[in-house]
Amino acid sequence: MNLKHLIDTQDFNRKEITEIIDLSLAIKKSIKMGYYPQLLKNKNLGMIFQQSSTRTRVSFETAMEQLGGHAQYLAPGQIQLGGHETMEDTARVLSRLVDIIMARVDEHKTVANLARCSTIPVINGMSDYNHPTQEIGDAITMTEHLPAGKTIDQCKIVFVGDATQVCASTMMMATKLGMEFVQFGPIGNQLNDKMLDIGKANCMLSGGKCSVTDNEDEALRDADFIYTDVWYGLYNKELSKEERHAIFMPKYQVTDKMVKKAAPHVKFLHCLPATRGEEVLDEVLDAKYSIAFDQAENRLTAMRGILVYLLKDKISANCKENAARSYIEHELFKIF
Amino acid sequence: MNLKHLIDTQDFNRKEITEIIDLSLAIKKSIKMGYYPQLLKNKNLGMIFQQSSTRTRVSFETAMEQLGGHAQYLAPGQIQLGGHETMEDTARVLSRLVDIIMARVDEHKTVANLARCSTIPVINGMSDYNHPTQEIGDAITMTEHLPAGKTIDQCKIVFVGDATQVCASTMMMATKLGMEFVQFGPIGNQLNDKMLDIGKANCMLSGGKCSVTDNEDEALRDADFIYTDVWYGLYNKELSKEERHAIFMPKYQVTDKMVKKAAPHVKFLHCLPATRGEEVLDEVLDAKYSIAFDQAENRLTAMRGILVYLLKDKISANCKENAARSYIEHELFKIF
Amino acid sequence: MNLKHLIDTQDFNRKEITEIIDLSLAIKKSIKMGYYPQLLKNKNLGMIFQQSSTRTRVSFETAMEQLGGHAQYLAPGQIQLGGHETMEDTARVLSRLVDIIMARVDEHKTVANLARCSTIPVINGMSDYNHPTQEIGDAITMTEHLPAGKTIDQCKIVFVGDATQVCASTMMMATKLGMEFVQFGPIGNQLNDKMLDIGKANCMLSGGKCSVTDNEDEALRDADFIYTDVWYGLYNKELSKEERHAIFMPKYQVTDKMVKKAAPHVKFLHCLPATRGEEVLDEVLDAKYSIAFDQAENRLTAMRGILVYLLKDKISANCKENAARSYIEHELFKIF
Repeated sequence: MNLKHLIDTQDFNRKEITEIIDLSLAIKKSIKMGYYPQLLKNKNLGMIFQQSSTRTRVSFETAMEQLGGHAQYLAPGQIQLGGHETMEDTARVLSRLVDIIMARVDEHKTVANLARCSTIPVINGMSDYNHPTQEIGDAITMTEHLPAGKTIDQCKIVFVGDATQVCASTMMMATKLGMEFVQFGPIGNQLNDKMLDIGKANCMLSGGKCSVTDNEDEALRDADFIYTDVWYGLYNKELSKEERHAIFMPKYQVTDKMVKKAAPHVKFLHCLPATRGEEVLDEVLDAKYSIAFDQAENRLTAMRGILVYLLKDKISANCKENAARSYIEHELFKIF
Repeated sequence: MNLKHLIDTQDFNRKEITEIIDLSLAIKKSIKMGYYPQLLKNKNLGMIFQQSSTRTRVSFETAMEQLGGHAQYLAPGQIQLGGHETMEDTARVLSRLVDIIMARVDEHKTVANLARCSTIPVINGMSDYNHPTQEIGDAITMTEHLPAGKTIDQCKIVFVGDATQVCASTMMMATKLGMEFVQFGPIGNQLNDKMLDIGKANCMLSGGKCSVTDNEDEALRDADFIYTDVWYGLYNKELSKEERHAIFMPKYQVTDKMVKKAAPHVKFLHCLPATRGEEVLDEVLDAKYSIAFDQAENRLTAMRGILVYLLKDKISANCKENAARSYIEHELFKIF
Repeated sequence: MNLKHLIDTQDFNRKEITEIIDLSLAIKKSIKMGYYPQLLKNKNLGMIFQQSSTRTRVSFETAMEQLGGHAQYLAPGQIQLGGHETMEDTARVLSRLVDIIMARVDEHKTVANLARCSTIPVINGMSDYNHPTQEIGDAITMTEHLPAGKTIDQCKIVFVGDATQVCASTMMMATKLGMEFVQFGPIGNQLNDKMLDIGKANCMLSGGKCSVTDNEDEALRDADFIYTDVWYGLYNKELSKEERHAIFMPKYQVTDKMVKKAAPHVKFLHCLPATRGEEVLDEVLDAKYSIAFDQAENRLTAMRGILVYLLKDKISANCKENAARSYIEHELFKIF
């Protein structure tokens, strides 16, 4: 068995990312048609949260249950990672008791260590460094809302505001998929060189582009997608309202006027929750071009695809037999 | 699709209430016979608790699981309603991630707003105003324990003690069903005029009666059901032991002597938890005429019926086909 | 129906314990082969935790879900046992809302009372007195790792260190099964006479042996299993690091050197979590002879067997019919 974690989308090549996206979309279509494929029947996900989260927790729990499995919610404080018991021991024990683990952590190294010590797949449910399940969900959302006649690697995405982990993640996914990525943010809150090096390496393979700027017109020009996130800063570096307004206001607030500088077919993304009136106005978040709530739903779409992808070697023989039968019947149908 | 919430039983007419009761009783009978109808297969309920609750939470969770679905427990503090993120956004996002929501809230307007903003059904799991799932459960319990030869609209129910939200709810359900309702409570802790107006409007349609009194003999005379609840008062208006005893003791304590003033076949109800020795004595709660524990079980009975009723448009085609087949076979059987 | 709880393995005779072990092993084998028997379909377990616990909670939750049921997690503070509502009332209500209860409690009398008041099975998930589900899991683990040519009643187990509830439990299970049990611990931290009387009574029936000693060589001689637990002391009697080191260090620390004094085929057990460097060294816990992680997995193995055993009268007629069919086909096969 080939143990695979989702700690960083950089561990996956473009073909693999595309497989996860396609799988996620196929399961979504099936469920919309009323058929819930019981691919994860009797499988258990252990969800470890060092910070509480509604969206990620509910998405994972619904995903497991819809596919016939179950998600166990281990709330902040209900499980320690590296306290009295070593992380290694906790990971080894959990590996015996559940089938797959997700962890939302304060520090990226915690989830990376958890993966290193586990003998079952581990999913990063957001760290201070990145947010890979959000990346997959966003890639799915953009795939569903491509401009007419364009493929995703012909699109430009501009991330407005702070260089949060969601900004970094958006950059990593966009450049992996061959998109043009621009962060439009103030100097001091732009992606650092180490991050940009990752993006540039991705672009070498994918043909994408990656840059940062504080020039609004340049950033927005011909953008197919605009993305923003809150200005709160990360965890122990959280900014007060005064501090964040001093840095970002009004230049980096996404307004309808700003959106009008992009391509006419532009779509607006936000990972949510939003601070309405701060990084984005109602006129944008509630506009027809806003796809932020489709994007929220695609957290669930992504979770299903990711869970099935990582557990594919443990899916029941019965499911595989059915899949094989459908495949060969479909192929045979072509020659009849 | 016709989106329906359960925020207040006043939003339902008598026929609809009766349908929910009948559906609940049918599912209960099926499960007692060993068949768990998988009507909510793969459906997810998001349970939001602003206050913790054992009975409501466990009833909902068991109901979903017995019918093939799943309930996600969002404990107090694990989800905010109207904090950093607006209630509207939270409701819109949850509407994408689960199939139905229940909320136990501090303030009634919170659950009403949640329903207004959601695109999926919302159930009020008790507010400071009312407790509609308790109402349905109590109506089921009374239906199961009707005096010989009487229908429910021929019965009288007396609620003893404080005008809590459970008292208000009991009044609303009783008058909706055409019963005679009397609150026996001290002046100052009786249902207010606004509440009584609701009851009287119900009675106009149903033929029931609705009143408040501090006259014990008059209240208890010919009562078919006696109901009481704790004297704690509501939330931020909680009473100390001294305060509540000064108001209610000993006149409004349900004793065996008080029960003897009602009809000989009278049954005793309590929504539980009870403060034994305060609003009720052991001699009553543990008497043969006490149906308080059947009533507790019927929380579960009610939850199953309510969930299926509100989700009836989303039940799988397969279930509906089976239901249609059984129905036509049963009808055909009559002519063979 | 014959209501049976698991509060203390002393309530079960050796034949019953062996049935639970065999059942647990059979279900484990089935699941390892890919078949999850849906024996607890639609059944609900209420899990009450007065102290938080990862291992016990996750084991129970996975066990229920793998067998088609569901476990409801009632975290510390989410349910009261004997506060405003009497324990009797809580037990009676829960008995109407779920199918089986487990409780991890501060005081043994709490879980014993819960069982006394419940009309459904109650499982002790560890008290200050004993840890019966751990006992069953450990018996399973030893059964899987018996020395070549020996049956379990020919084996010797030495428990090193403090007379915790796990030590007491190990003694009770070992003597029940006819093993030779020795606690190797300092005077003042050895099993008391009342405990030893239980062990001796067990030995009268089983042919086992039971003793305590502070003589290392005598304790370890020919031991087939070495078991240890943390030195923290129990709950309100928790020891500081200085106190516990003064009592147990270095004599009662399990080192490779100590292990070498036992039989050459000896296996090492630990209920986990371990304080590495205190009661046990890495060289032992990570040695080839350590079966502590198999033992952790067998918490899950035990939970499945215990749950099915206690709920066997409520398992669906369909499951029983299938079991009967398989049995008779298997028997008939012998005569064909």
